[in-house]
Amino acid sequence: MEFIFVLDILGVVAFSISGVLAAMRKGLDVFGILIIAFATSVGGGTLRDVLIDTDVSWLTNMTYVYVIIITTIFGIILRNKLNYLRKSLFLFDTLGIGLYTVVGVEKAISAGLPPVICVAFGTMSACFGGVIRDILCNDIPVIFHQEIYATACILGGFSYFALAYFNLPQDLIFIISGLIVIAIRISAVVFKISLPKVY
Amino acid sequence: MEFIFVLDILGVVAFSISGVLAAMRKGLDVFGILIIAFATSVGGGTLRDVLIDTDVSWLTNMTYVYVIIITTIFGIILRNKLNYLRKSLFLFDTLGIGLYTVVGVEKAISAGLPPVICVAFGTMSACFGGVIRDILCNDIPVIFHQEIYATACILGGFSYFALAYFNLPQDLIFIISGLIVIAIRISAVVFKISLPKVY
Amino acid sequence: MEFIFVLDILGVVAFSISGVLAAMRKGLDVFGILIIAFATSVGGGTLRDVLIDTDVSWLTNMTYVYVIIITTIFGIILRNKLNYLRKSLFLFDTLGIGLYTVVGVEKAISAGLPPVICVAFGTMSACFGGVIRDILCNDIPVIFHQEIYATACILGGFSYFALAYFNLPQDLIFIISGLIVIAIRISAVVFKISLPKVY
Repeated sequence: MEFIFVLDILGVVAFSISGVLAAMRKGLDVFGILIIAFATSVGGGTLRDVLIDTDVSWLTNMTYVYVIIITTIFGIILRNKLNYLRKSLFLFDTLGIGLYTVVGVEKAISAGLPPVICVAFGTMSACFGGVIRDILCNDIPVIFHQEIYATACILGGFSYFALAYFNLPQDLIFIISGLIVIAIRISAVVFKISLPKVY
Repeated sequence: MEFIFVLDILGVVAFSISGVLAAMRKGLDVFGILIIAFATSVGGGTLRDVLIDTDVSWLTNMTYVYVIIITTIFGIILRNKLNYLRKSLFLFDTLGIGLYTVVGVEKAISAGLPPVICVAFGTMSACFGGVIRDILCNDIPVIFHQEIYATACILGGFSYFALAYFNLPQDLIFIISGLIVIAIRISAVVFKISLPKVY
Repeated sequence: MEFIFVLDILGVVAFSISGVLAAMRKGLDVFGILIIAFATSVGGGTLRDVLIDTDVSWLTNMTYVYVIIITTIFGIILRNKLNYLRKSLFLFDTLGIGLYTVVGVEKAISAGLPPVICVAFGTMSACFGGVIRDILCNDIPVIFHQEIYATACILGGFSYFALAYFNLPQDLIFIISGLIVIAIRISAVVFKISLPKVY
């Protein structure tokens, strides 16, 4: 599925750049920037794989490593122009979380986990790279207190099981639930929808 | 052992509420509050299971997940009344760390680890959910600089091995060492005993 | 290899003391100081072993545990004199990262991982204890924004593979690439060389 591969790489690019930007904002050196780009990109999937106790994919698939290194270099060079790419990066990020949610759900299903946990793992795959980025940068994770982000993944994850209940073909379930994540996330940003805060 | 099950659930309730309170203090949204409640409740046991390389229990046992979700919802709704429940919550928390310490020690023993490491794992099971909560909330872990908490677990863990040395029956060892944790923790709070700080 | 064993212990001592100092600076109690000394010493190797999915070595080898406990006690007692030992501690630390880098690279090679990943794991073994220390102390990891440290490990890791390419004997590769880490690190401190920061 070449199409999926392209989405995956766009997601990694968007996640790396978000790491590069966060690290530059903190005045880190190039090593720090690279590590944070790396942790943002692969952190969620790594945590998922360690908890499920399956092989961590970037250990043997070098594509991710190279994409992250190249993105980090370009991100540093083009840092004053990244603002012009903001909309594209938002789009890549959104495509990325759509894909990673569904991939995470499917990985958890094939590990034989119950549906609610599978949804949690889909969300973790998409969102926890950002949580690790913020912890490394000594900030409270931004997804805990901003526009709807993880919630889009949760709803997309549940829709995966709703669609599976109606016996739709596998590919269609994959695409529709990914699109649900993407649609919710875009709506949340366009209409500035946040989860309620509690004081 | 229904008795143990009730203690376990009370512990999860107390840990979740402590997560909910910490997250609300930071102004997080409902997703952030839920994740921090979750991490506080299962974080210690999860770290233990990953390090021992055994199955992480909440992946397949949905009871914890449901208890945490329900507790979080009630915690948010009743947030202005939680202060009245302070004493009950302290009691639940204390029962919880007593139980988790002994459960953690026994899990480590059955993994064939040496006694000192088993005590460390008992303490980790009881205390590291709170460490993860504080890291996610961008605070220095409170158990590193406040009233005796982890120390109660360490002493309870060692008493487990002391009692085993005298060949007491398994159930009695379990109960006595759990009670030792609970007694030390309650005394520490009542008499305001802290570990020495070093400058 | 008694020689290696001595280096290893010196490294653990240096890492523990760096944890003790960081924890004391934050005003933590003796439990907090011990945990941070422990995390600084074994954190990098533990993360490596969890990701590779191999046994975590300090679970069964009590030597590390005892060395860390004893070092922490001495560190606390001698806290006002540690400044006089600064140069020795720097030397121990540098010997430590030289050794841990090469050990980490070799562990990753025997897990069948590709060279770039092996270098990453060597660097992680040497440096991520310090990252975990700084996260627990609520600081941005110091190796992300100071004098060359991780970079010495990365270069030493790559030189391991360069030397292996020329079919040098295993022991010689081990020693030379460790010495490269040490030489680069010492030069960086003596000549105050940092990586470029990016704003």
